[in-house]
Amino acid sequence: MSRADHFTIGLLQHASPIGASREEVHTTFASMAREAAGRGAELIVSQELFGGHYFCQQEEAALLDLAEPIPGPTTQCAASLARELGVEITVSLFEKRAPGLCHNTSVYLGRDGSILGTYRKMHIPDDPRFFEKFYFAPGDRGWQVVDGVAKTGMLVCWDQWYPEAARLTALLGAELIVYPTAIGWYHGETPADRVQQRDAWITMHRAHAIANGCWIAAVNRIGVEADLTFWGSSMVIDPGGVIVAEAPQDAPAVLVHRCDRARIEEMRRGWPFLRDRRVDAYGGITERMLDGTSA
Amino acid sequence: MSRADHFTIGLLQHASPIGASREEVHTTFASMAREAAGRGAELIVSQELFGGHYFCQQEEAALLDLAEPIPGPTTQCAASLARELGVEITVSLFEKRAPGLCHNTSVYLGRDGSILGTYRKMHIPDDPRFFEKFYFAPGDRGWQVVDGVAKTGMLVCWDQWYPEAARLTALLGAELIVYPTAIGWYHGETPADRVQQRDAWITMHRAHAIANGCWIAAVNRIGVEADLTFWGSSMVIDPGGVIVAEAPQDAPAVLVHRCDRARIEEMRRGWPFLRDRRVDAYGGITERMLDGTSA
Repeated sequence: MSRADHFTIGLLQHASPIGASREEVHTTFASMAREAAGRGAELIVSQELFGGHYFCQQEEAALLDLAEPIPGPTTQCAASLARELGVEITVSLFEKRAPGLCHNTSVYLGRDGSILGTYRKMHIPDDPRFFEKFYFAPGDRGWQVVDGVAKTGMLVCWDQWYPEAARLTALLGAELIVYPTAIGWYHGETPADRVQQRDAWITMHRAHAIANGCWIAAVNRIGVEADLTFWGSSMVIDPGGVIVAEAPQDAPAVLVHRCDRARIEEMRRGWPFLRDRRVDAYGGITERMLDGTSA
Repeated sequence: MSRADHFTIGLLQHASPIGASREEVHTTFASMAREAAGRGAELIVSQELFGGHYFCQQEEAALLDLAEPIPGPTTQCAASLARELGVEITVSLFEKRAPGLCHNTSVYLGRDGSILGTYRKMHIPDDPRFFEKFYFAPGDRGWQVVDGVAKTGMLVCWDQWYPEAARLTALLGAELIVYPTAIGWYHGETPADRVQQRDAWITMHRAHAIANGCWIAAVNRIGVEADLTFWGSSMVIDPGGVIVAEAPQDAPAVLVHRCDRARIEEMRRGWPFLRDRRVDAYGGITERMLDGTSA
């Protein structure tokens, strides 16, 4: 089957407020998904843990009750929408894999509602107000590309800071890498710190696009939840590092963008970085730190 | 010996025009180095192949006559300046290692004029007007950090597009990574392409600083040489990805900046990326491309 010369993605940015039920948030999501599909989206991408508030601001064992199996309520909601709209959907959810063993997981559903791929977040943060290591075991399925409307790499949030993750996903053939995200500011941070943090976040995504010559999509939530204000700013970046679609910092958005495959070829011909990689000299990447003065 | 709480670097951005002799350019360099030292620079960094025009716009065997041994005219010039000014200096030069075997090499000289480190450019480009694979054998000394006034990683130009190079250098303990550079626009490129290219170049450097929590310095040349206009824009970037000093696109500049060590600790505590690397899952980085849909 020959591929179209483009694929169209739809990113759904919204609030998932404290106190809203999963069903309420799913209703919002479904409404936005219908809008995205109506505007031509073939792949719809959720934000991280989109079905409820960001519960990792505290360590509380009772919150493990929020975890769900796969298949479960979230994948059933997404599968139903995929069939209704004839689109592919990736959803991010809190996966209960076994008693006491949970993951931060993305599931990719095909047009018929079947599961085409699953990715478990590989890099897990742990900072005040982002106590993710308490809730999520590190992913054990490695790097994943799903062969849907695009070859789609499935990274999640904290992975965004790791060039290794983007590179490995690109080496698997990703034309697009999606990053469902939940990132925001702590109320105590200075305005200068806020600018620096959001700008650094944007810069890393742009660098992944440039270094790997592929499309990047980041989907972040909005809204105030306890001590955090999530900064939205969901975006689509082309393989040259140019932000071609961007959502506001504080309002819901259905961001639909048509991604031309030719732009990948064009950038990789102009700047053939993959050709010149020194694969003979990268072995040290698997070390935590290197001793001495050369490697 | 305890280290100072900061180190001060001086980047020398200038033209190295076609037709200027090595001695003429060295005189310009010495004058700028004296200014940098007078303004407090402890480490002076040259642009790439600073001693003459960028000769790689054509493939011409006779141009191999421009290569020089180490030690040779360029390291002798730099050693003499280092002793005179009491500073450390890195210079980028066209190294003749053996008949028919040349490299694009950086040499780091200590205050007493001795050679503290040598790096041979690992990633070699080859594009129309940048025929570097004709002139330079790929580096065979790996990644290098010199323990001078700062722990200084020594990458060069095309290396800037490779997150692997910055990461490996940071894992060796680099507090600062310097990138002598010769990058510019071809006369035939559109204004939009020019903006995209320079912006991508800046973005990659900023991403290296963010991902690795270290200082970055890029030193580029200016001026028109045959089909290329070099875009200057030499810059210093802090470990948070903020550009803290920046030179113009089309004028010489002596860029002196005091780099606080505490900023490294501050950024790495706030965003402890090195802590969470999945070193167990990065093995595929040493492959050219990966087959299948997961790795």
